Amino acid sequence: MARMVRFHEFGGPEVLRLDEVEVRELAQGEVRVRVGAFGLNRVETIYRSGHFGPVSFPARIGYEMAGTVEAVGPGVTQWREGDRVAALFGLSMEDYGTYGEEVVYPADMLVPVPEELTFEQAAASWMQYGTAYGLVEIGHIAKSDFVVINAASSSVGLAAIQIALREGAVPIAVTRGRDKAEALQSLGAAHVIVSNEEDVPARVMEITGGKGAQVAFDAVGGEPLSALLTAMAPLGTVIVYGMLAGPICTLTLPPLMLANLDLRGFSADLLVRDPQSRERLVEYIAGGLTEGALTPVIDSVFDLADIVEAHCYLESNRQLGKIVVRT
Amino acid sequence: MARMVRFHEFGGPEVLRLDEVEVRELAQGEVRVRVGAFGLNRVETIYRSGHFGPVSFPARIGYEMAGTVEAVGPGVTQWREGDRVAALFGLSMEDYGTYGEEVVYPADMLVPVPEELTFEQAAASWMQYGTAYGLVEIGHIAKSDFVVINAASSSVGLAAIQIALREGAVPIAVTRGRDKAEALQSLGAAHVIVSNEEDVPARVMEITGGKGAQVAFDAVGGEPLSALLTAMAPLGTVIVYGMLAGPICTLTLPPLMLANLDLRGFSADLLVRDPQSRERLVEYIAGGLTEGALTPVIDSVFDLADIVEAHCYLESNRQLGKIVVRT
Repeated sequence: MARMVRFHEFGGPEVLRLDEVEVRELAQGEVRVRVGAFGLNRVETIYRSGHFGPVSFPARIGYEMAGTVEAVGPGVTQWREGDRVAALFGLSMEDYGTYGEEVVYPADMLVPVPEELTFEQAAASWMQYGTAYGLVEIGHIAKSDFVVINAASSSVGLAAIQIALREGAVPIAVTRGRDKAEALQSLGAAHVIVSNEEDVPARVMEITGGKGAQVAFDAVGGEPLSALLTAMAPLGTVIVYGMLAGPICTLTLPPLMLANLDLRGFSADLLVRDPQSRERLVEYIAGGLTEGALTPVIDSVFDLADIVEAHCYLESNRQLGKIVVRT
Repeated sequence: MARMVRFHEFGGPEVLRLDEVEVRELAQGEVRVRVGAFGLNRVETIYRSGHFGPVSFPARIGYEMAGTVEAVGPGVTQWREGDRVAALFGLSMEDYGTYGEEVVYPADMLVPVPEELTFEQAAASWMQYGTAYGLVEIGHIAKSDFVVINAASSSVGLAAIQIALREGAVPIAVTRGRDKAEALQSLGAAHVIVSNEEDVPARVMEITGGKGAQVAFDAVGGEPLSALLTAMAPLGTVIVYGMLAGPICTLTLPPLMLANLDLRGFSADLLVRDPQSRERLVEYIAGGLTEGALTPVIDSVFDLADIVEAHCYLESNRQLGKIVVRT
């Protein structure tokens, strides 16, 4: 028996419960992991609220975790008891939800956790860097490119700043309020635009000397996305990976067409499900973590018993970086 | 002196006038061409109507023409008197408008007209195939790809069908009314969807066995573009090269994100202005014209004196393929 976070109905953070659950038998290719820590992601609040479509209750939840291999199922040769591992994201949360003390996970969706990293750090890494890796795989960011990153204080936003810097690009962070501007600068943003006070496209144009940005990494959609299109250099790429402003976006087509812009919808799940792009992603991120070019920014660590409070905090938008739960 | 089509105010087809104009001196790198025929394009009606921004009157107009070199300016070595040439599109119409008997054009924006082609055919080729070439350069269409082409009866639509076939892809033509369906099939469309009568995404899904199309080539924008996103295969590419439904498009982001779709704004002008992509484009189209894989479909040929009538017809949407004017 192990304590797992589940919910029995859709709703706010309060629907999350700590249930005692029987850990199931391992099937072909599966591994049982004693979880050390798991990371929280905004997408999980959307799932919990019922915006993902039908779920059978009680429902597990969670995309990320790091811990120690306890047992391996039939056919698993790459892991053995005692190995330190972390989960790649992108699997069905119903089948492989990671919030809990014990998790069953497919062996080929685990990655090793190097000595240098704590479980908290490892559980804070793969989803944010896997998403921000879209800048490399899809955005093909290059040295000296200006890269606009909105929702910059989110875990993915900070990861995107680090990946931009690793590629020699110039990260321009966009954040709503002035309160996080200084911290973003100290975390690597070359420029910070405060969207509540400043005209984002005008500032991007000013920063880029009138040329526009080569790449934008957009978590917002809606009107801000449409505005971003007017701040891009010809042949620029806008990667849309989130829709904090809702699922509908009214675009004006002329800037898209006249500058031959590339608007890419992006969900990192697809990258991770394809073995070849998964290999590139894992190599890139593991290398960055080991070298120290990628250092997860952890805002706070909660205890498992405080999962409801942790989700409340996640939805407050007060954090800067990742929220992790220790089991 | 030569007769040139110009307009002295913005407005409907009736603002086009036939003016006697002095042909100017050739500058460095320019060529004077005795025009045999010029092609009409929808973008020219938008320019004539004043939706392109300020223009100094009287204004020249036109992107395409084919004819015979009459004189070469200083520094021109690749052409000589008597050469049969056609204009690449994409230059400022104010400087290099092509509707008329005599045109001055930059030498490096001319291409040879092979023996096999009439001036009418050559004047009907470069803009339509240059635009449809986006399927190759941007869409990377491959053998057996399903390619959705809307506004399929336009000159660019028909050119896109031919280029899809040349690449071994499967063109799915979308047209508004039933009246052009049969002709589209005989011109190479593997499937025809009549958008006034049928649900376009549902029919694309049916034709592709539920998988969706790999590439779409969209002249419309607006609601039809948003609907197209739901008919694409994962990692599919939608190339937006026109906005017949207006400059505003309300997109729903989830299909874009979940399938990692690529929405590309596309204006062939940029391809043609870059010497490297211009070389690829010219090689591709010249090869296709010579082999006969690309055969321009000419709807009708007007006389220069009937330019107003020709523009009226262009705006009627009754044509199937290209409208050409003989000088």
